[in-house]
Amino acid sequence: MNNQATAILLAECPDQPGIIAKVTAFLSKNNGNIVDLEQHVDSADKHFFMRVEWQLENFSIQLDAIKDAFQEQVGSVLDMNWRIAFSGIKPRMAVFVSQHGHCLFDLLSRYQSGEWHVEIPLIISNHTTYKTLAENTGIPFYHLPINAENKQQQEASQLELLKKHHVDTVVLARYMQILSADFIEHFPNKIINIHHSFLPAFPGAKPYHSAHERGVKIIGATSHYVTSDLDAGPIIEQDIVHIRHNDSVEDLKRKGQDNEKIVLSRAIRHHLQYEVLVYKNRCIVFD
Amino acid sequence: MNNQATAILLAECPDQPGIIAKVTAFLSKNNGNIVDLEQHVDSADKHFFMRVEWQLENFSIQLDAIKDAFQEQVGSVLDMNWRIAFSGIKPRMAVFVSQHGHCLFDLLSRYQSGEWHVEIPLIISNHTTYKTLAENTGIPFYHLPINAENKQQQEASQLELLKKHHVDTVVLARYMQILSADFIEHFPNKIINIHHSFLPAFPGAKPYHSAHERGVKIIGATSHYVTSDLDAGPIIEQDIVHIRHNDSVEDLKRKGQDNEKIVLSRAIRHHLQYEVLVYKNRCIVFD
Amino acid sequence: MNNQATAILLAECPDQPGIIAKVTAFLSKNNGNIVDLEQHVDSADKHFFMRVEWQLENFSIQLDAIKDAFQEQVGSVLDMNWRIAFSGIKPRMAVFVSQHGHCLFDLLSRYQSGEWHVEIPLIISNHTTYKTLAENTGIPFYHLPINAENKQQQEASQLELLKKHHVDTVVLARYMQILSADFIEHFPNKIINIHHSFLPAFPGAKPYHSAHERGVKIIGATSHYVTSDLDAGPIIEQDIVHIRHNDSVEDLKRKGQDNEKIVLSRAIRHHLQYEVLVYKNRCIVFD
Amino acid sequence: MNNQATAILLAECPDQPGIIAKVTAFLSKNNGNIVDLEQHVDSADKHFFMRVEWQLENFSIQLDAIKDAFQEQVGSVLDMNWRIAFSGIKPRMAVFVSQHGHCLFDLLSRYQSGEWHVEIPLIISNHTTYKTLAENTGIPFYHLPINAENKQQQEASQLELLKKHHVDTVVLARYMQILSADFIEHFPNKIINIHHSFLPAFPGAKPYHSAHERGVKIIGATSHYVTSDLDAGPIIEQDIVHIRHNDSVEDLKRKGQDNEKIVLSRAIRHHLQYEVLVYKNRCIVFD
Repeated sequence: MNNQATAILLAECPDQPGIIAKVTAFLSKNNGNIVDLEQHVDSADKHFFMRVEWQLENFSIQLDAIKDAFQEQVGSVLDMNWRIAFSGIKPRMAVFVSQHGHCLFDLLSRYQSGEWHVEIPLIISNHTTYKTLAENTGIPFYHLPINAENKQQQEASQLELLKKHHVDTVVLARYMQILSADFIEHFPNKIINIHHSFLPAFPGAKPYHSAHERGVKIIGATSHYVTSDLDAGPIIEQDIVHIRHNDSVEDLKRKGQDNEKIVLSRAIRHHLQYEVLVYKNRCIVFD
Repeated sequence: MNNQATAILLAECPDQPGIIAKVTAFLSKNNGNIVDLEQHVDSADKHFFMRVEWQLENFSIQLDAIKDAFQEQVGSVLDMNWRIAFSGIKPRMAVFVSQHGHCLFDLLSRYQSGEWHVEIPLIISNHTTYKTLAENTGIPFYHLPINAENKQQQEASQLELLKKHHVDTVVLARYMQILSADFIEHFPNKIINIHHSFLPAFPGAKPYHSAHERGVKIIGATSHYVTSDLDAGPIIEQDIVHIRHNDSVEDLKRKGQDNEKIVLSRAIRHHLQYEVLVYKNRCIVFD
Repeated sequence: MNNQATAILLAECPDQPGIIAKVTAFLSKNNGNIVDLEQHVDSADKHFFMRVEWQLENFSIQLDAIKDAFQEQVGSVLDMNWRIAFSGIKPRMAVFVSQHGHCLFDLLSRYQSGEWHVEIPLIISNHTTYKTLAENTGIPFYHLPINAENKQQQEASQLELLKKHHVDTVVLARYMQILSADFIEHFPNKIINIHHSFLPAFPGAKPYHSAHERGVKIIGATSHYVTSDLDAGPIIEQDIVHIRHNDSVEDLKRKGQDNEKIVLSRAIRHHLQYEVLVYKNRCIVFD
Repeated sequence: MNNQATAILLAECPDQPGIIAKVTAFLSKNNGNIVDLEQHVDSADKHFFMRVEWQLENFSIQLDAIKDAFQEQVGSVLDMNWRIAFSGIKPRMAVFVSQHGHCLFDLLSRYQSGEWHVEIPLIISNHTTYKTLAENTGIPFYHLPINAENKQQQEASQLELLKKHHVDTVVLARYMQILSADFIEHFPNKIINIHHSFLPAFPGAKPYHSAHERGVKIIGATSHYVTSDLDAGPIIEQDIVHIRHNDSVEDLKRKGQDNEKIVLSRAIRHHLQYEVLVYKNRCIVFD
């Protein structure tokens, strides 16, 4: 945790000697004091990944000139994919929910306590179950019911709302609708879902029923970025809880929901802290 | 743990009022002091399960008459499937191994320290890798190499050895051969396997490679009874370890092996303590 | 989970042969169908513990006569300490909170979703921080500020409120005041606290600071019944999270709070389900 | 994991801008390809820590000149405490054991399977319990019984043996003797102990008895460097297992021993991989 203004670079490029030296020399010669640096080399793929955070105080490049300078002096030289975020700018996150409220409650309690560096400008639901909860929290709530006929049109309304509220991240807090490939394309690696199983086991509907039927001794939850391939997007976070033979499907749901909300909240935090890089459907999480 | 001689009843029957009263009345009127009693009702299936252990000291029925008396006075009345084991009789367990030794080492160290109430009369392998280890431990080692041609014949030899050594339990300590349905039929719910994934995810060969490829954040191990349906038998025990993006397939193997040996050893212990009942491909584990 | 009306017996007595037989015979002859039965024998202390739950439908003893009948036919015979609860009667639980809201938020979200079989008639706080939250949930909120001078008087007011609202359980959801021995005596084994360390390590104030200072690799949370011996009451539930060298005290607090709320909620559930027996400052939890 | 020859730098110094740039520039200009780099800033203490591993192939400085060059060009400039290790040189580790063998067995199975990059030239014990085991593994075994009178003399013999065998790391695999401050001074942060509790809870003798007495719901194990302050040295690794009310002290020992051996082995691995830096009695573990 650092209360001073910082910039965060997330970058990846083919591996070669001298990458860290080049990046840190760029920061050093411009008086950028590094707060945190992590790197990873995928030795099978010979690919390099990096996250570096530095203090903006005393940094000799103006805020609006940093990206150009970096691209010219480092990015273009190393054939790098990169992005830079500034701690002063709060991410704007929309929450989609249906009728299971445990993740939404948890998320809103974190929002209200100021645990996350985020703005939540709206909540969207296909039901009205959590309208009052949203309003008590002071967040605008939009009810967009979905059926077989109106799905395309409702997604268009959702996209419009997200655009209007300058949303950059979408959280599906147990939103039981499947998003279209077209919708997903608007938010690549920016839609975070929570699935209530340890994927790749038990994808699809009713994983707790399947887990009970199979007689497993652990149940899990998986938070991942949404891709057009259902329940197969890059995994950000997973965890499990142990169960016993005397746990009914109802018990699995109850125990699982505690796990779901913790796993989702960890994934959201990683995302909001700019700690996640996606490469070949896998997440590098610099935690 | 109880050092006195005890008997253990494992029983299951359709649920109805009064089952526990009948079983405990039988024990009570014959001066059987209950050391441990656990029961479970599958309320969906309306089926009853029970494990009860009682002291044989002062028990008024002779050892060799207990089973008949129980069947006559309780079992037949309740349409019960049951078995009774005596703590004085050590289970006899064979170990099958191929070329991964971590589970075998762990198992033998428990055997040598006397942690388990078991006799291991032989180790069977399709390789000679652990011949010396077995011999140092004083356990006869049989080398039965297997190829596409001789499999049926070698299984016959294995069965003969198991019969000759009065084996009642077989542990596959990372034995990389698939047993035939015929072999398995000789040991129903008596062959314990360790699979190196959190089943049902990643069945079959090379689960650590698949886990790495999929980018999961946890890896698991599953110990289950072997059935003719590969990697689909009833699960006795499962656990997981967390991994990070910087763990290579080799790292997964290393971290996973620690997990495998612990999970397998817990499953073996449950089995040896007569704590496991199998019903509809699920394990009730009275732990 | 059972939606039908049940009775739950929690009992303990010196161990002797035939206890379960006597209890289950009492239920059986009165047509009480057992839903769940667990027992435990402390073999060192030769003491017996039991929890049994049975359906009241068809039970031949009237509700208001059960306790007398049990005492006469079983309890007095076995020198038993026991209590019987009825699933039809909702426990009434007060929540005390100061300025940390994570446990309160979590608890209220469970309350609103109907996860627990409980009535929360009031929230008491020495601050006004969560007044609006309580009111939004529809629960009366009482602000009773405490200082060195008025403590005794405020505790009297609290006791009066608890009595008026027929409260039988008190949850300290990070209530930062120490209750007097006199207050505690009114609710023996009925006040549930959450302490933010794995007791007995780091009792007292600021355990996360102490954990950071000591350089531990795990932090914990402990939910226990409150006794006059601070942080030394019988432990109902504990769990931990792993931390790394780069976690600051602030990070420990954040990660720890997720753990605290889960541990507290599990302890509350055990208590509300009548699963806990206290003996010699230890909890037997029949889960 | 990297099979090519590498060098590993572990360094710490007061924090200032440009440290990483200086270190990586030194490596880059000498053609050292970085395989792994991790850093940590203790922001409270304004202190910097770093581990960097680079390939020696193509590195333009000769092996025996690297340390001088680094000190001259980097270390002295930054007022750095540092050490450099070479992957080509195997650490030499002695194992001390008494009468509990679970950690020794586990450790030797890893040694035999080649899991660790280490040489174990000798085992020292105050008992003969594991003489045969050591000899079967081909490791010299020294029996040095200890009593109140001969302790000083036996420690002298131990030190002589360690010197003779060029030992740089000592593992106390449940060695039940307290080492003298004088002995410890010979191996600062090089003696690794396993204590069978989650320190700082239950230091000293018989922690499982204390845990049972207190009624905790988790038991732990702690691996730490030995200092003259008993059970208070810097913690390398900790983990726990959950227990229930029906676990006797014997059960705690059994479950705990599985935990001990895993925790000790992880700590040893961190040490052997040069991943641990000690600062103010805390371990920075770059894992």
